[in-house]
Amino acid sequence: MRRNTHCAVVMPKEQSKCAVIGASGYAGEELVRLLLAHPIAELVAVTSRQSAGKRLDQVFPRFAHHNKGDLLFSDADSKKISQTANVVFLALPHGVSADLAESFLDLDARVIDLSADFRLRSSKVYEEFYGTKHAAPDLLKRAVYGLPEQYGDDIAEADLVACPGCYPTSILIPLLPLLKEELIAADDITITSLSGVSGAGRKVEADYLFAECNESARPYGVPKHRHLSEIEQELNRIAKSLPVSIQFVPHLIPMNRGIISTMFLRPGPDVDESEVEAVYRDAYSSEPFVRLLGDERLPDTKNVVGTNFIDISWRLDPRTGRLIVMSAIDNLIKGTSGQAIQCLNLMCGYPETAGLL
Amino acid sequence: MRRNTHCAVVMPKEQSKCAVIGASGYAGEELVRLLLAHPIAELVAVTSRQSAGKRLDQVFPRFAHHNKGDLLFSDADSKKISQTANVVFLALPHGVSADLAESFLDLDARVIDLSADFRLRSSKVYEEFYGTKHAAPDLLKRAVYGLPEQYGDDIAEADLVACPGCYPTSILIPLLPLLKEELIAADDITITSLSGVSGAGRKVEADYLFAECNESARPYGVPKHRHLSEIEQELNRIAKSLPVSIQFVPHLIPMNRGIISTMFLRPGPDVDESEVEAVYRDAYSSEPFVRLLGDERLPDTKNVVGTNFIDISWRLDPRTGRLIVMSAIDNLIKGTSGQAIQCLNLMCGYPETAGLL
Amino acid sequence: MRRNTHCAVVMPKEQSKCAVIGASGYAGEELVRLLLAHPIAELVAVTSRQSAGKRLDQVFPRFAHHNKGDLLFSDADSKKISQTANVVFLALPHGVSADLAESFLDLDARVIDLSADFRLRSSKVYEEFYGTKHAAPDLLKRAVYGLPEQYGDDIAEADLVACPGCYPTSILIPLLPLLKEELIAADDITITSLSGVSGAGRKVEADYLFAECNESARPYGVPKHRHLSEIEQELNRIAKSLPVSIQFVPHLIPMNRGIISTMFLRPGPDVDESEVEAVYRDAYSSEPFVRLLGDERLPDTKNVVGTNFIDISWRLDPRTGRLIVMSAIDNLIKGTSGQAIQCLNLMCGYPETAGLL
Amino acid sequence: MRRNTHCAVVMPKEQSKCAVIGASGYAGEELVRLLLAHPIAELVAVTSRQSAGKRLDQVFPRFAHHNKGDLLFSDADSKKISQTANVVFLALPHGVSADLAESFLDLDARVIDLSADFRLRSSKVYEEFYGTKHAAPDLLKRAVYGLPEQYGDDIAEADLVACPGCYPTSILIPLLPLLKEELIAADDITITSLSGVSGAGRKVEADYLFAECNESARPYGVPKHRHLSEIEQELNRIAKSLPVSIQFVPHLIPMNRGIISTMFLRPGPDVDESEVEAVYRDAYSSEPFVRLLGDERLPDTKNVVGTNFIDISWRLDPRTGRLIVMSAIDNLIKGTSGQAIQCLNLMCGYPETAGLL
Repeated sequence: MRRNTHCAVVMPKEQSKCAVIGASGYAGEELVRLLLAHPIAELVAVTSRQSAGKRLDQVFPRFAHHNKGDLLFSDADSKKISQTANVVFLALPHGVSADLAESFLDLDARVIDLSADFRLRSSKVYEEFYGTKHAAPDLLKRAVYGLPEQYGDDIAEADLVACPGCYPTSILIPLLPLLKEELIAADDITITSLSGVSGAGRKVEADYLFAECNESARPYGVPKHRHLSEIEQELNRIAKSLPVSIQFVPHLIPMNRGIISTMFLRPGPDVDESEVEAVYRDAYSSEPFVRLLGDERLPDTKNVVGTNFIDISWRLDPRTGRLIVMSAIDNLIKGTSGQAIQCLNLMCGYPETAGLL
Repeated sequence: MRRNTHCAVVMPKEQSKCAVIGASGYAGEELVRLLLAHPIAELVAVTSRQSAGKRLDQVFPRFAHHNKGDLLFSDADSKKISQTANVVFLALPHGVSADLAESFLDLDARVIDLSADFRLRSSKVYEEFYGTKHAAPDLLKRAVYGLPEQYGDDIAEADLVACPGCYPTSILIPLLPLLKEELIAADDITITSLSGVSGAGRKVEADYLFAECNESARPYGVPKHRHLSEIEQELNRIAKSLPVSIQFVPHLIPMNRGIISTMFLRPGPDVDESEVEAVYRDAYSSEPFVRLLGDERLPDTKNVVGTNFIDISWRLDPRTGRLIVMSAIDNLIKGTSGQAIQCLNLMCGYPETAGLL
Repeated sequence: MRRNTHCAVVMPKEQSKCAVIGASGYAGEELVRLLLAHPIAELVAVTSRQSAGKRLDQVFPRFAHHNKGDLLFSDADSKKISQTANVVFLALPHGVSADLAESFLDLDARVIDLSADFRLRSSKVYEEFYGTKHAAPDLLKRAVYGLPEQYGDDIAEADLVACPGCYPTSILIPLLPLLKEELIAADDITITSLSGVSGAGRKVEADYLFAECNESARPYGVPKHRHLSEIEQELNRIAKSLPVSIQFVPHLIPMNRGIISTMFLRPGPDVDESEVEAVYRDAYSSEPFVRLLGDERLPDTKNVVGTNFIDISWRLDPRTGRLIVMSAIDNLIKGTSGQAIQCLNLMCGYPETAGLL
Repeated sequence: MRRNTHCAVVMPKEQSKCAVIGASGYAGEELVRLLLAHPIAELVAVTSRQSAGKRLDQVFPRFAHHNKGDLLFSDADSKKISQTANVVFLALPHGVSADLAESFLDLDARVIDLSADFRLRSSKVYEEFYGTKHAAPDLLKRAVYGLPEQYGDDIAEADLVACPGCYPTSILIPLLPLLKEELIAADDITITSLSGVSGAGRKVEADYLFAECNESARPYGVPKHRHLSEIEQELNRIAKSLPVSIQFVPHLIPMNRGIISTMFLRPGPDVDESEVEAVYRDAYSSEPFVRLLGDERLPDTKNVVGTNFIDISWRLDPRTGRLIVMSAIDNLIKGTSGQAIQCLNLMCGYPETAGLL
């Protein structure tokens, strides 16, 4: 799908000094973990309103052994931070990121935003789905959608990357090649997703207490989940025919991490499983983090949790003529922070898999 | 949907003496629990090949306090058992039930079968989906499908009841009224279900070990799960137009009990949510175990686990025009053993809710 | 241990009309569930600051089918409530109960308190362990400690019952007979307990979020957990020799319900397992909710969850000479709300097991 | 505790070519994972009776992306394997390892055994605890107990290393320095451990099915767990005074991985927390995988799962005079396979942390 994925030797353009803004949530914690283990990039700053003044190892005891364990959480002061950091990860709620992103960009830092603030190209759609005016609508065109399997070349040149949501990642990677090659109808796509509870973030709300989630499974966000907006936007950019229309229902299930997305598609009249396989092989055989499962097995979150992989499987149902495509990712890695590191690698000219295998 | 559901005083036709054949699995254990607590019916025998000779409280320590705790597991000798029991529950794997059922019927016992052996009306379809010849094809016509919300009157007269599978129960109760009243298209039904691990039974296989299921979510049985056969059979009996065609993908998720089924339907042109509600109220307002959730909330397994209820919710998606119907049950109670007790109550003229509230 | 446990026919002194104050926590929810199913007592009022004005079935959808489902949550106005209720359950945080209890007693209601406020007989010890002055120290002497296996006769006469904590219940029932009969040393008792997360209550704190508790096990409250105060108080009342001293470490583990307590004891020189068994049989063979497991098996929370039973097992270790006693309860039933219902039954002259089997 | 732990540059004595015998269990899978990611060692062979002939990625889909994914499982033929491998990991049940170990040693391979077969120095104690004669008693003296924090120098020279059990690792590392420095009594040690279910291995038995373990906590192996034998052996080698006597009760709890051990100790008369801390700092400040938690926090399995660390915390209880020491490890990493890799690193002269951080 793009050039230069696997070039053996790459000259890093720069040694990136990274800051994680909003590092006390699950996505922030995972970013910190990945940056601490990254062979080239360096973590230089972490911020969090509620943890300011605390050491990294106090907030996250799992990092106690690391020589960065005594890094202090600070406030998100963009001037101070950009004195030491040249790449800034924003792991903040939507609505808060936009302002800060602008400020960091003005200070010549490159910004990788994990929130929803720069995923949509239209501030009107943003307002419809998120219920507030966009704080920096002029930046929307400048942002690149951080899906390396689709926009790798653009990400390499970007200074503002909007990392996709976890559900969209699990859905777009399987659907984009099928729509691009017109193997499936664009107006008849039904998707259910199952997500582990960390997908809700470290929100201190009764709904996410252990005893409310354990031994519980429930649909939510019916019928109009926010992630629909970016899924449809991205599919519409690729699909050649009709406006894409998606039916999407997410479910919360009792596990920490992982997303399964099961997609019901209407294939063109002569499409068979081997053609689906050919399209997938063509699109993804050189992608380092896409695994095509073929006939042998179906995806299982336990095979991807802790990794940056997406596992994809498909079956044509001879009874109904439908194509069923299933994917599995770790929502906090390929769905969020791992993908952000993958974008960092592309932006900085590092090997795309650096720190991710 | 039928008469006499709530008649205040009913004369029991008989005091039923119940045997549970195959009582060492999860469905059998749950049947035993419900029978031990039943105000009228009495448990008189339990059988299990691997537990023969053991006391009930040795196999299930949770029943240690009960005065039936010292009931001995025996072999499934139909002659001996029918000397003390007049109602026999078969909680056996498919293929094994058919023979035994015939033998018990010949001995004038009434039979409530929890396996798949008598759910299908056609031995040919049985052979297609279960891969073996049916052992007692002549009995198929005699069997009544044990869904009280649909066949209550027939169950009351039956001597052979075939309890529906857990997935079918979670799907048929919501779909039947919509198809009967022609609110939805019969040929465009897409369903995903999520099931707790007890749904696989007490099978000692590596796939169901704790560390293989915990922190794991996975689709399975794609594209042709066995339960499809009985779902389509039952829907086709009710639907007036086209042959019903269903797309169905079940998922295994890390919890003990509970099923969520999420159904994507194509409603007729003028159908709105209030019409859906009216049809449901008409069908189920007098059903003691169907709860219609209305606008307020979506189903959550934790609200039905431990009970014989099915919770049903629906939303019309104005973007896509689809109707989304969601249901939740406890797979071992409303999905299996509770439903079997509900059938027992109908067969014996007990209050339908006896031992189930 | 006391008379009249199993008297077949008992004349209820009164039809109790029950109010649950603080009904929106886990203990309150469980009380509501048990009262809705109680054959004699009637639930007439529920209160909760944050849920005032909502219907019972809105706060707890699992009760949607019940004809009490539309009971409205109100504020805890003792005057209004005592117009309809003659028994009041206080399921409130410690420190809040004391005041209200006094007010209800003055209005001639009988009070069953689930908090820690009336468990200690000394306001000084209360202050030491709970860090605040006691609000109604004069009532401490009037309160009866609500452990039916020890104080059944007193509870029957009481108008203020202080239900034991969940850890103390799991520890006192096994230890009291051994200390009373001087089978073990009073000054060498080491206990570890494992508790499911509902033991922390419905506290909306980050520590109890699903993703913080799932796949996590941790000791806490080391070295001085609050429950120590009531455990030592109760043991000291019974032990004949030395002041009792206990080493106690609780652990939080990833399950909803259940407590395992493992106790390491130093038996007298000639004590053997059969003597332990004899003492237990003597103390508890007529207790309806104590199950002595004997040699056959060790306790497992899954055998008691959902019930009011305590399972007790013991082993003498010939290598070390220690006696190991292990118990299992459901922390929300025998550990809290079920025990409160057991107390209600005794106070009102109902069969002790009413609504609990 | 030993020299050369952190020497900056080490010349590898050899590039190790590693075989994993019995690679289809949880310990084997984890070893494979660690070896695939190891910067120096190379995985060259995997064996498994039941998986022979299958590819690595068929048995473990999570390794599908790796270029070793198509390594074929073979039988454990020591001649063939020692043609390509010079280090052999035995991840087999006890009783099976001893024979194979001898065969590999004769073929000049170095052996790292994860079973119990070479942990005990006495074949008599082995027979007492494991119930069978030892198959290669002459090798017992040759084996080095693979606890790097205690026997690092010996491991570096060994050709047969017996990796400690998971419980012993979690107990010995905290206890050894305290006994060595005579801070605690040797004859009054009480320990409870909590273990995730993977600790039982990938045993296909009903006891370890998901629905039997989830929502269940239970003690087991009371009073004489096999691991006691090696714990007491190792403590006795270090303790200067009395024979060490230990009271040990393990519990199975519903999580995949992790062990918490809580130890109750009787300190000498003047021992205070700072002396404990000093002893621990002296023993472990240069150990790369021991983290001393100090006053700030107690151990939690979630901080060590996925790592080779052991977290240790301690509190002196002023009420009882007891010292409470608590530890947390990942049973499959520091408790088994990670520790085996740590031994490999020492044996081969690699940096001790290679492939483990």
